[in-house]
Amino acid sequence: MRDFSTDHSALALNTASLGHNLDGHGAGWSPERVIDACAARGFGSVVFWRREIGSRAVEIGERARATGLSVAGLCRTPFLVGTDAVDEAAVLDEAKASIDMAAGLGAAVLTIVVGGVHPDTKGTTESLKIVTDRVAALAPYAAERNVKLALEPLNPVYAGNRSCLTTVRDAVDICEAVDAPNLGVAVDVYHVWWDSGLDAQLQRAGKDRIFGYHLCDWLADTRDVLLDRGMMGDGVADLRAIRAGVEGAGYAGPCEVEIFSANNWWKRDPGEVLDVMIERFHSLC
Amino acid sequence: MRDFSTDHSALALNTASLGHNLDGHGAGWSPERVIDACAARGFGSVVFWRREIGSRAVEIGERARATGLSVAGLCRTPFLVGTDAVDEAAVLDEAKASIDMAAGLGAAVLTIVVGGVHPDTKGTTESLKIVTDRVAALAPYAAERNVKLALEPLNPVYAGNRSCLTTVRDAVDICEAVDAPNLGVAVDVYHVWWDSGLDAQLQRAGKDRIFGYHLCDWLADTRDVLLDRGMMGDGVADLRAIRAGVEGAGYAGPCEVEIFSANNWWKRDPGEVLDVMIERFHSLC
Repeated sequence: MRDFSTDHSALALNTASLGHNLDGHGAGWSPERVIDACAARGFGSVVFWRREIGSRAVEIGERARATGLSVAGLCRTPFLVGTDAVDEAAVLDEAKASIDMAAGLGAAVLTIVVGGVHPDTKGTTESLKIVTDRVAALAPYAAERNVKLALEPLNPVYAGNRSCLTTVRDAVDICEAVDAPNLGVAVDVYHVWWDSGLDAQLQRAGKDRIFGYHLCDWLADTRDVLLDRGMMGDGVADLRAIRAGVEGAGYAGPCEVEIFSANNWWKRDPGEVLDVMIERFHSLC
Repeated sequence: MRDFSTDHSALALNTASLGHNLDGHGAGWSPERVIDACAARGFGSVVFWRREIGSRAVEIGERARATGLSVAGLCRTPFLVGTDAVDEAAVLDEAKASIDMAAGLGAAVLTIVVGGVHPDTKGTTESLKIVTDRVAALAPYAAERNVKLALEPLNPVYAGNRSCLTTVRDAVDICEAVDAPNLGVAVDVYHVWWDSGLDAQLQRAGKDRIFGYHLCDWLADTRDVLLDRGMMGDGVADLRAIRAGVEGAGYAGPCEVEIFSANNWWKRDPGEVLDVMIERFHSLC
């Protein structure tokens, strides 16, 4: 395992952690201000959300790189299945626009949150088939633009309306079915920390299919499954064990901190949040 | 698969569905009134909660059987691990008292909800080991009293503070480790509906280790992960597919409806709730 005790060059900020990706939350820092704050503190990279980028993808990407940061990723495609994704042509068009944005930004990876259960079906089986077909349709388009696509399984609590994809197992199944070299998996502590089968599935994914590792913590008595994530160390996830699994499978990329926290971290000064993040990264991750 | 289209003799009421197990919820029917209402409608069995039974286990069990109902189960042991289960001797004493109550009631099965992550540990691994040890200590005591113990995996959203046991896979692992003939698994639609690995694990469990099957539905846009369960048909779980898996593994026991629903079903007349349950059981389960 990499030694992060004094080195945070692998640390990436997902801008969601500063809350400005949701209207009315956080300090509302511009992408430029976030870039400067991360660069000044020695972060290695940054991950943006589409709503922050608008038509300024090339400009923001160049600005980040000029400060020495890389753009590790972009969040995210639209839902590919579920209640709001019934119109396949519209979904694929928007997904391609998100791929274009990732390419313009120079983002290494575009995250896919797949969406919930397709209307008029039950369970996750049919919906996962639809996801597989739509990802297969998008992968070549992304490959032509040098964009990697990372399927992110979400905690099963979201299976109804956000992600019928709930485990690394299912994500690797889709990767194997689509068999595209630019399709892989994003592993987020918040979503997978409970899974006793994780290590085996990470081994199955291997280094060529693990495209991201996301950090935060699961608060034991969480008050909200969307906006009450914990800072590393404040919850019950075994962060070191999960990173051992990810790195044991060959991953050596960024560790991206993504904390949605409406009532705690989003209310603090963003500079303080970044400083705490670095300290916890050194001591606990 | 069994044909339930006109037959609900396999239907069991878990009294939680009428809300009277939580202070201030539901119509507050007595166990006797619940028994009479279920018997009058042709339910096959009923499942109680400890708080409803108090010192009247033998009396209530006999009353149920006198009407033709069996007592399919009792909810539940105390948490065996987690913040409130640090004192092992106290936990085992309370668990033995719950076994005694199940024996007095003549309940076929006592459900185990295992509890969350043990304080001062991270992840689920250590906690699951503690659960395994404590279940192993309890199984002989239960066997002497003709009580079956059913490990119930809960949705991973509860892994922090209610159940580090989240999958049928992990439950079968514990069954294999303990290797007691009176230890098995309870399969609840609410907790397992999202799991693409379910069928394989049900096959692994087999008929000798599936001790219960619980019905409700997962509402796609659930508002509360504790008290907003859906009536069968109102959500996105594939009820027929899950029952096919359970029965394909050899299960032929009760189908127990357990719906926590503070803002919908608990506000309705209990008789209406029972009638809707029967109709949905015939048409959708």
